[in-house]
Order: sequence, then C-alpha cells, then structure tokens
Amino acid sequence: MTPKEAAKANLENLYRIFTIPEAPDSTLGAIDQAITRDVAGFLQAHIVALERSLEDIEKDFADPEIPEEPAYVSDYTEFIKEKLVAHSVHTAAPGFVGHMTSALPYFMLPLSRIMTALNQNLVKVETSKAFTPMERQVLAMLHRLVYARDDDFYRRWMHDSTHALGAFCSGGTIANITALWTARNILCAPSGDFRGIAREGYLRALEHLGCRGLAVLVSRRGHYSLGKAVDLIGLGRDNLVRVETDDNNRMDPAALCSELARLRDEGIRPLAIVGIAGTTETGNVDPLDELADIAVEQGCHFHVDAAWGGPTLFSERHRHLLRGIERADSVTLDAHKQLYVPMGAGMVLFRDPAALRAIEHHAAYILRQGSKDLGSHTLEGSRPGKAMLVHAGLSIMGRKGYELLIDLGIERARLFAGKVRRHPDFELMTEPELNILTYRYVPAWAQAAMARADAETCRQANAVLDRITRLIQKEQREAGKTFVSRTTLQSARYERQSLTVFRVVLANPLTTEEIIDAILQEQCRIAGREEIRQLLAYLAQILGADPSPRP
Amino acid sequence: MTPKEAAKANLENLYRIFTIPEAPDSTLGAIDQAITRDVAGFLQAHIVALERSLEDIEKDFADPEIPEEPAYVSDYTEFIKEKLVAHSVHTAAPGFVGHMTSALPYFMLPLSRIMTALNQNLVKVETSKAFTPMERQVLAMLHRLVYARDDDFYRRWMHDSTHALGAFCSGGTIANITALWTARNILCAPSGDFRGIAREGYLRALEHLGCRGLAVLVSRRGHYSLGKAVDLIGLGRDNLVRVETDDNNRMDPAALCSELARLRDEGIRPLAIVGIAGTTETGNVDPLDELADIAVEQGCHFHVDAAWGGPTLFSERHRHLLRGIERADSVTLDAHKQLYVPMGAGMVLFRDPAALRAIEHHAAYILRQGSKDLGSHTLEGSRPGKAMLVHAGLSIMGRKGYELLIDLGIERARLFAGKVRRHPDFELMTEPELNILTYRYVPAWAQAAMARADAETCRQANAVLDRITRLIQKEQREAGKTFVSRTTLQSARYERQSLTVFRVVLANPLTTEEIIDAILQEQCRIAGREEIRQLLAYLAQILGADPSPRP
Repeated sequence: MTPKEAAKANLENLYRIFTIPEAPDSTLGAIDQAITRDVAGFLQAHIVALERSLEDIEKDFADPEIPEEPAYVSDYTEFIKEKLVAHSVHTAAPGFVGHMTSALPYFMLPLSRIMTALNQNLVKVETSKAFTPMERQVLAMLHRLVYARDDDFYRRWMHDSTHALGAFCSGGTIANITALWTARNILCAPSGDFRGIAREGYLRALEHLGCRGLAVLVSRRGHYSLGKAVDLIGLGRDNLVRVETDDNNRMDPAALCSELARLRDEGIRPLAIVGIAGTTETGNVDPLDELADIAVEQGCHFHVDAAWGGPTLFSERHRHLLRGIERADSVTLDAHKQLYVPMGAGMVLFRDPAALRAIEHHAAYILRQGSKDLGSHTLEGSRPGKAMLVHAGLSIMGRKGYELLIDLGIERARLFAGKVRRHPDFELMTEPELNILTYRYVPAWAQAAMARADAETCRQANAVLDRITRLIQKEQREAGKTFVSRTTLQSARYERQSLTVFRVVLANPLTTEEIIDAILQEQCRIAGREEIRQLLAYLAQILGADPSPRP
Repeated sequence: MTPKEAAKANLENLYRIFTIPEAPDSTLGAIDQAITRDVAGFLQAHIVALERSLEDIEKDFADPEIPEEPAYVSDYTEFIKEKLVAHSVHTAAPGFVGHMTSALPYFMLPLSRIMTALNQNLVKVETSKAFTPMERQVLAMLHRLVYARDDDFYRRWMHDSTHALGAFCSGGTIANITALWTARNILCAPSGDFRGIAREGYLRALEHLGCRGLAVLVSRRGHYSLGKAVDLIGLGRDNLVRVETDDNNRMDPAALCSELARLRDEGIRPLAIVGIAGTTETGNVDPLDELADIAVEQGCHFHVDAAWGGPTLFSERHRHLLRGIERADSVTLDAHKQLYVPMGAGMVLFRDPAALRAIEHHAAYILRQGSKDLGSHTLEGSRPGKAMLVHAGLSIMGRKGYELLIDLGIERARLFAGKVRRHPDFELMTEPELNILTYRYVPAWAQAAMARADAETCRQANAVLDRITRLIQKEQREAGKTFVSRTTLQSARYERQSLTVFRVVLANPLTTEEIIDAILQEQCRIAGREEIRQLLAYLAQILGADPSPRP
C-alpha cells in the first residue's frame, strides 16, 4: 500500500468504527442480546461464583502499556467476559445483602442505553436541551417529597434560571460536599467590606466572623464523606465534631449541646449540624426534629444526610421516622441506592431555592448569566443525563411502587432480626429501625457465660469473637453464594467496647425468607470449620465455659 | 381483593419488575433494538431537527408531583420518545462542531450495557473485584502515556494498596479539584507541632506557613472549574490569579513571574501553577516546559489541565506540542472528551504515587487500612465502572487508532481555518494549534474598512459584529442542522477588546469537508436575513463603508 492508500484505509476503518453497529451474532452482539433477554440469567451464568484472589486477578490487568495496534472487538469481548465479567461481584444477587446495591427494575437497562446513546451533557442547555427541564423536574419532585411545598412554590422556582431547588451529582459524597460548601459560603457571605469567602477565602472569612474556626457536628455514625468534606473546604478534620450517640446509634441531643458549648468556649462557630436519616452501618435515624430546634437556636445550617434513608418518605407507614427532615436547610439523597437506578446518581436538595447562589459561577462560553445551564449551580462540570433514570423510576413505579419496596425492606429486616434473636447462636447487635441490622455469631454457651462474666473477661472474649466474625464473613464472601458485610460498632451492652459485627442491608426485593435462612445456615456451617472451632475452644477457656453441644 | 391478596399481587408485580426483561416487540424493546441495530440512524430519526423553545419544552416537565400510581412502561416510553428524546441535542451529529462531544465508537454502547448490568461500585473491592485492578491498570496506562516511566515503576506501584497513580472520577472538574486539594494538603503537610491542614484546617496551616494566603496561577484562558476549586478549598477566587496570555492565548511566562513577585510582596504563597494543554475555548497549549521551570524555582505544585488536549500525546506528529507535561506533578484528563467514552469519565494522574496519600481517608466498614479499595484516594465515594470503557477504547483502538483521531482532528481544523481565511466574509480569530479554532462573520467590505479605521470606530463596529455573531449562532442552532458555539475572546488585533466569536471543535471523525463547507454556507445564508442585513447597514454607517456586493 502507498502511504496515501494506507491513509484512506485508515479513514475508512475509523468511519466504520464510529458508525457500524455490532452484528447481533458477533461475540459482543451476542452478550448484548443475552443481557437484553435476561439480565439476571446473564449475571448468574457469567459471574463465576468461586473466589479468585485479588492478587491473582491483578495479573490480568498488569500491563501498563497501551496496545500499539488495534484489536478485534470479538477478541476483546472474550477477554472481558473471562477476565472482567467473570470476576466481578454479583451485586444484584438476592443473597448478597452486605452492601447497598440491589437488583434493578428491568426497564433501567434499556433506558440507560437510550441515555448513553443520546450522550447529553447536562452542564449546559446547548448539549442537553429537554434533559435540562427534566432534571429540574426531578429535583422538584424529590424536593416536594421532602419539603412538601405547595404548587405555587414549584411553579415559581422549578424552572427559574437564577434559582435551583437542588443539584444533581454523581453521588452522596458530592452531595454532602455541595451542602457544606454552600452552607459555608452562606455563613461567610459578602457583608460590608468583606466580599465573601468565595472571593476572599477562609482566613479573611474567619477574621470577618471573629472566630478561630468553623465546625460541623455529626454523630459518631456520620458517613466518612463528611470527613473529606471538612478537609476539602478548609475546616480541617478536627473540626468535624463526632457527637456521642445513644444506645440506638442516634445522636444524643444533650451531648450535641455540650459539644456546642465547648466549641463556643474555644472560639469556634458551628457551621452546620448534620442529622442522619439512615446511618450507613446501622440504618438509624437521628432525632431530626430536636436537631432542627438546636440548629435554629444556634443559627447554624441544618443538613440531613438521607443518602440511604430518604426514600423512606415514600412510605405512609414509615415516613414518620424521618419527622423533622422537612426543617433541614439541605438534604442529601442517593438515587443509586433506594431509588434503584444504576450507580452514579445522587442529589442535594435545598429548602431555599436561592441557597445555591452562594456557589454560583459563570464562564464566557457557557453558564452565562441568565442562562438555564444547570452547570452554574453544580460542583461537577460535564455530567451525564442520569436524572432521566430517576424520572423513569418515579414515573413508572410511582410513589406506591417505591412505598412497596421500602415497606418490604423494613419488614424483611424485622424478619431477619427476629430469626437472629430466636436463634441460640446469634446475637443481634442493632435492631433494624429501617432496613439495616447488625449481629454476630456467639454460641449459646458463650452468650450465657458472658452474661455472668466480669468486664475484663468480656473484653477478652469479644476480641476472640471479633476474629471469629471476621473469619466467617471472609469465608462466606469467598464461597460466593451469599454475602454480608462487616463493620465495627461500640456496643452499649459491653461498655462501649468496639466490636466487629455482621452488617446486613435488606433492600433487594428478591431477597426472600428462604435466602435469609440460607445466609444464617451458611454462617453456622462455616462456624463448624476447624479454624473457628479452635477459636471457640479458646473462647470457652477464657469464659470458663463448656462448649459441648446442648443435649 | 382482600388486603392479603392485594399484598401478594403487589409482591408479584415487584418481582416481575425486577426480573422480567422487556419483550423485544414492546415499545421500549423496539427502541432498544433500534439503537442496537443502528444508533446513528436512531438519533437521526428521533431527534427532531426543529427548535422548540426551552420555555415550551418546560411545559412537559412542569409537574412537581411524583405520580401516585405506577404507569405502563410502554406509555412512559412513548412519553420520553416524544418529549425527551425528540428534544435532546444530537451531540453525535457530524455537523455539530460547537461542543466537545463527538460520535462514539460503536462498541461503547454494548459495553456500556454490560457495565450497567454489572452495576459495580468502584469505591471498594467488595463491590467491584476485577474492576478494581482494571481501573488501576487504566490509570497506569495513561500515567505511562504522560510520564513514560519504566516497567519497574509500574510493576512496583500499579497495584500497591497504599499508593495510587491517580484517581478516576466523573470528569475534569473533579479531577482539577482533586489535584489542587492534594497540592494544598502536601504543601500544608504535618510538620512539628502542626498536624497538617487535613486535620487542623486552613487558618492553622497559614499560621504554620507564615503567610496571608495561598494562590493558584493560571492563564486568562483557564477553565472555570479552577474558580470553583479555589473557592471550595478555601483559597478564595481572588487568589486564582489570571495571568495574561500572549497573542496565541498561551500563558506569558514573564507575566507569570511578575504576578509571582506581586504575590510574594503581599505575603501570599503560590500553591500551584496550572498549565493548560488545550484551552477550552481556543485549544492552545501553554509553554509547559517553561512553566515547569518556574514551578521548580518557586517550589510550588505544577498541575496541567489536559482535560481536552491530553490525548494529543497519542500522536507521534503532534505530541511535541505538549512537551513539558511529563514534568507536571499532576495532570487532568477527560475520558469523555478525546478518549471517546460516554459522558461522565475523567481522571487525574500524579507523577508521585505517594501524592494522593495527602487526601487519604478510611472508614470502619470499608476503605480499611491496607485494603485495595479505590475509594480511599478519591474525592467521590460510590462510583460506576466507567474505567472499563476507557480500557476498551485503549485496547480496541490502540494507540494508533487514537493517533488517527487526533491527527485527523488537527488536520480538519487546519482545513476549516484555511477555508475561513480564504473566504472573503469571514475573519479567523484564532489559529488552530490543536483542533479548535474561532472565527466570525465580517463581510469583506467591513474588514477592509476596519483595517483603515481608528480604534474608537473599530470598537463601535465590533459591538455591532458581536450582535451579528450572536444572532447567526442562535439562528444556526435553532435551525438544528449544524451547530457551532460561541464565546468571548480578547483579540490582540483590536487592542484586546473583548469580542464574541464562533467556536469550533473538530473532534468528530465523521465531520467531513462537505459538512465544513455546509456550516460556512449556512452562516452566510443566515447573514442574508433581514435582521442581520439591518445590522450590517448600521455597521456600514459606522465604518463609512459601502456594503454593496462586490462585482
């Protein structure tokens, strides 16, 4: 080939690769069709159940070199089928109740394809058009779910270019950061000579406010994203005050007040109180109404992290658990959690449609003053049209559909807790308030012995039980049939000792009672293995107990 | 139905909606298949060309109420087909050269479906497994493209749990923020009594450093995300110093040095110098090597925002334009731009694999010390597995495939610029260094008159030309056949007066010479319309020129 012919051939290849769809009978086309026909079956068939160690998997992804030459799509498809898909996690499996990812309503998949094919960029109207009003509508719908303002309110603000009822984003972390950034900029707004923190920075803002620092207060169960947020916005992690909780993992208002008094003495001003509606580890809800009262009294921002629990508002029966959320200045919701859309969708809502002006920004080529470009009020820039999937969920399932999911999750969590409570060899560590519970494996004889044992003996026993919990969780995960996660909690029952526990999230509607039974049975089976039996013998020694089986 | 029967029916419905795929002959199934068969054809057929005003579209997205009852998927599909898809923007159209979104390689769509079906969460290994090493490999591949370290380097660090070659994220804005956050925390690292800015906050950090503030320096053409970043991390927008550019929109190193001297006098320390590899509006590249020298001299962080231009490194012929990028401490790349993956994928790379430790964080239930969870080094929390699509692009197209795209874009931009230059009624405002150029419509007689006119007359004439540019751009966009964007630039030719210009991005390989001709022809046609003819008459009056057609 002459160089000119080669160039022409290259161009033709390029044209093909950008226009010609995969034939349905090709390798990639066949997978595509298989997913279209039956996604659950596809995942079941292609995700290999047996654990391969991460170190071993890494060998398939070890070459730092970008291949020089193009490859056949079919060869690449074989590669990802064997090396990537096979060794992914079956997040939709009903027996995988350890994380916050569920099976998805089937329509999410074809709608995601439409979204990807349209490839809109929501930062500006120029590249999103109808997606812009749609996203604003989604924000309004969820704003209304939380704040229940009247129709006039939404008619007035929903599509107003200089206001925003919230900001869509990639997830709850960005939502929490956006909330605290906005709160910071509102507290440190321009006033007199001071042109505001957004212009002059944090040092001048503190000089203007006449204080040594700003603090964010949240319970000990606050999400780790809040630590990132206070680091990022300049407050420092020392100024994320972790308030003590009551025995139900809810923030203790008295402890909050004493922390606030301490801060005042130190010349630190409270920027925000963060209430949690559904703690990540235990699914508890802070006393939001009381926190709102305290925030009003302190004149500080009240943010509610409802990334997990927010959709509880869909349920007539359970929405009272979140009473007070409507008094929050801002609320975080994660759509990829209990709104059942694919990964990568969150939002923050603001009671005041003018709040987000505190972080407003413009540019010469987009986001011009007066434009309806969503990007002028978001932390992120270019963003996909994920709001479409939330719009679809709300429209197709309706409030009642989501209510059913919420009610079902809470019911199943109670069912699970009941089974744990009645089982002689498990100890329920936290009751499910929403649809999350924690527990651990403690044989009946050990429970009986610990009830009589002194604190020091319990402490030693708990250290062994922690090892047992970790081992069971790891082996169960590696067996690949069912999955619970683990975390550490301070238990009131054991003088606030930090304990390792199983954590279970019941949000997948396909998790039946039979599956719950299978999870517990598998844990008991694993507990019978040699390594754990040795630990149990050691535990018996510590407790001076007799581990022989009951008659 | 009894309540019990109703509950059973509800459960069955729920089960169906989470398991049963859409029949291929249903409304949604049919769209899905149409996209599978021919995405370009689908977009062409379903996106309505004619502009409907945004205010009018808003009427379809005006109800703030979440529907109470579930809806049929088919009805909803009809709704989005008519109301959302029809009024989206055809971002893949080869005549839409006004934004940075291109057509996508066809394999991106079925691969995106696999990604969505797997619904992995990259924050932790527990919910991503093979996706974790894959993302680390992608970061290594692009790190190598930029920094070209040897194999030993990548073998050592690529999969090391306590190090990271970069962070994947939703886009360039988060990447830039991550870079500056990291730089800030490295500059204000723990030392002696000072426990670091991440713990103690910005005020204590400044006291420790003994300065009044920190500044970020970037050229006037810097992306607006940098303004957000300095606001967010507490520096304040006043401390984003906009350095003057030369006539080619590149940062002027002499101007940078004088700004640095000014800052020193004011007690403000430079945190970072930001070089741009591909300015958003004009596609120019700062003198990166010189900026690197100055950053070394100043002991400050050197970040390169290569969100747009980074992939130029794929091209043997053009990569020299980015010389010096390998000296950057951190580099931003956007995968949804010139890596041709769907919206929502960016990354930041760090030369030093230990840099991201400055923002490291942990939690009790995930991201534990020593785990390989990617979330311990990212600004975001839960994230989808978009790295898979970058992996696919690099693997299937290879370096040579991307090289072809880069070379083609630059070649087409030069072709476009040549046509503008040779056309009597257009004025080229910025030459394409990469694949972006700006120009405007100025009839030959006006160009001739302005060459002779005084500065004040030119100023008045430019004000009229700005209105003409805006009108043409708006009418062209509304006609819906082709699209260029517009921005404002300071032109050296007109004493740095701020001018409105057309902005063209040539990154879609399907944009042929015929389409380029059609874009220019359409602009000339629009210029013949009454409203613009009146403005041209007024322009002639200002310039004392004769607008009658040339013979």
